[in-house]
Amino acid sequence: MNYNFSKPIENLKPSAIREILKRSSEIGIIPFSAGNPSVEAFPSKEIAEISAKLLENEPNLALQYSVTEGYQPLRDLILKYMRDKYSVGGTDDDILITSGAQQVMSLTAKVFCGAGDTVICEDPSFIGSLNTFRSMGLNLVGVPLEEDGINLTVLEDALKSNNNVRFIYVIPNFQNPSGVTMSLKKRKEVYRLARQYDVLILEDNPYGEIRFKGEDIPSIKSFDTDGRVVYAGSFSKVLSPGMRLGYAIANKTVISKMTVSKQTDDVHTSMWSQLVAYHFMKDYDFEEHLQKIRGIYRKKAELCMSLADEFLKPMVDYISVEGGLFLWCKLPENLDMLDFCNKAIENKVAVVPGTAFSVDTNAKSDRFRINYSTPTNEQITNGIKILSGLLK
Amino acid sequence: MNYNFSKPIENLKPSAIREILKRSSEIGIIPFSAGNPSVEAFPSKEIAEISAKLLENEPNLALQYSVTEGYQPLRDLILKYMRDKYSVGGTDDDILITSGAQQVMSLTAKVFCGAGDTVICEDPSFIGSLNTFRSMGLNLVGVPLEEDGINLTVLEDALKSNNNVRFIYVIPNFQNPSGVTMSLKKRKEVYRLARQYDVLILEDNPYGEIRFKGEDIPSIKSFDTDGRVVYAGSFSKVLSPGMRLGYAIANKTVISKMTVSKQTDDVHTSMWSQLVAYHFMKDYDFEEHLQKIRGIYRKKAELCMSLADEFLKPMVDYISVEGGLFLWCKLPENLDMLDFCNKAIENKVAVVPGTAFSVDTNAKSDRFRINYSTPTNEQITNGIKILSGLLK
Repeated sequence: MNYNFSKPIENLKPSAIREILKRSSEIGIIPFSAGNPSVEAFPSKEIAEISAKLLENEPNLALQYSVTEGYQPLRDLILKYMRDKYSVGGTDDDILITSGAQQVMSLTAKVFCGAGDTVICEDPSFIGSLNTFRSMGLNLVGVPLEEDGINLTVLEDALKSNNNVRFIYVIPNFQNPSGVTMSLKKRKEVYRLARQYDVLILEDNPYGEIRFKGEDIPSIKSFDTDGRVVYAGSFSKVLSPGMRLGYAIANKTVISKMTVSKQTDDVHTSMWSQLVAYHFMKDYDFEEHLQKIRGIYRKKAELCMSLADEFLKPMVDYISVEGGLFLWCKLPENLDMLDFCNKAIENKVAVVPGTAFSVDTNAKSDRFRINYSTPTNEQITNGIKILSGLLK
Repeated sequence: MNYNFSKPIENLKPSAIREILKRSSEIGIIPFSAGNPSVEAFPSKEIAEISAKLLENEPNLALQYSVTEGYQPLRDLILKYMRDKYSVGGTDDDILITSGAQQVMSLTAKVFCGAGDTVICEDPSFIGSLNTFRSMGLNLVGVPLEEDGINLTVLEDALKSNNNVRFIYVIPNFQNPSGVTMSLKKRKEVYRLARQYDVLILEDNPYGEIRFKGEDIPSIKSFDTDGRVVYAGSFSKVLSPGMRLGYAIANKTVISKMTVSKQTDDVHTSMWSQLVAYHFMKDYDFEEHLQKIRGIYRKKAELCMSLADEFLKPMVDYISVEGGLFLWCKLPENLDMLDFCNKAIENKVAVVPGTAFSVDTNAKSDRFRINYSTPTNEQITNGIKILSGLLK
């Protein structure tokens, strides 16, 4: 039969960069294109211990249906942790356990938006979230990102000139793809503007816990006094992405609607994943584990940046990072970015073309993204040298 | 702030039966209201063995990100199993691993429907799927269910009189809530009508493997020659619902669109769940396990039906079942169904009011649903006797 797919899904077409990404998983390719946490950062031994115990002691809890909201002791534990450590989650807030943080974006869009509604995003931004919004037929308005975060003037213009804005989507810490961290001043201004124009903020914070240098900056949710911020947290970078575990912290009314919506999507999140995370946070030294993985990312980031300084500068510049997984690199004007990325993959180095992260999929870009958490140190060294060779 | 939720989500309101369902999880309540598989049916020991091995031998496979389509060896294994055993999945078909079968309903609706499109359902039908369609703003048209399946005359009328029907949603085996199995003749007619009116069929089959009496009837997907049927399979009743594992088998083009859509929802399904199911099917005797759990359900169903024959008939009638988890019971005309269900919960027996499964949420119903897989044998015996007492 001839299929009539829904318009937003029909429009989500494979892009020009798909071939590059496809080839990047081939054997022998240096994977600067990935977004994976380092396998060294997985507490595999501890997870095996926890898993053995829980399948021995409480198999029915792990294997039976559970409630959509999530395993109550885990909800309590995360909420307390986030309140105590980051002042995220007030007395009017609640928490929903999700199947990865990606589901927070999907549920937030689903409960607040209908097709044609507008979402304002940083430009560039995380392709996964942009595609979530696109798949629902939402209108994306991009606001340029500067080295201290979103451009406030353009943001206010966007809020003024679009009358159906439902929320502003931001990744304030070590943004994907740019590595940019939003300044405290800008965080406060974004919140003030959201109040002024009465829109919500979706604050996505997958990398906040892996700051390996400098001081934490309070999240926008920490100064949310009127339930305007939906906060998305993730276990993908601090524990394991394969277990698909994330959470939303937001006003109780919002969480209850997101819960109803999640129930219709996947009923609840894998109980094994929830129980493993619960016991890891409760029975092990979570802070020590975080220190360990921050050390892993610091070393990899420092290696990558020092090699970039030595071999890529001054032709290729990048934004220096204090956390996260990515370097956002800028090519000189006379080089064609897609051509450069294609040459790189021909030479066995996969980077992601900057256009992948553009809000306007037809926009030009002189950027590419390097991920330093997936490749080994040897691959980082060889990869940067190969890119350097291409520039000559 | 004042929240403006999307219309379909705003309309998904807590219903009158919510209080009954809430109370049904209280301690001391006989849980005829659940939809849970029996914990005796979980292969806990085998899952613990598999889990220990895989976290020892391939922790990074279990803990790292993976592809949206699902773990390739699991996809191959299920597709071969379904082709060999049930003739489900032709050469033009492919498979997508999902986070429970519920996600198949959600993805099918998302890729094919926009708000206002029509979905035709059996009436009554599974509340989870109905709410999935409602949460997307779809128009539900119910077609009455008879003891051999959907009423074909009303189905054809519905196809004729609605010009935006995208698919027909059916549960042909041991339907939830009715326990009805659609006859082969009706399955063929539903397929013929779907061709004639050029709409898809979403065939949901969570209970097909737990037929404990009689002969299997070919699924609609097994005679699908033009890629018109999306088949939803589930591991919830044959392995474990807590691991949230299901799959879709459909035409390759459809699967590729569902994959893009799933990527924006939750990236991929828990790798631990996928690997456990893979090793269970590959390394253990899956058929023997199925025989064992069919035995468990046969005993519970036979106990429940013989008690209903003795204590509830002739006032309360029910549809005799050959598989599945439920008895669909009919009250005499002079009794108010909601009143009866409320009295039952006051007497510590929770049943689900029939209105929960109505396509028209304002419709009257003289039915209630009993689940016999969750309660113990003692609870089944006591529960039926208490209901019998209420009838007097």
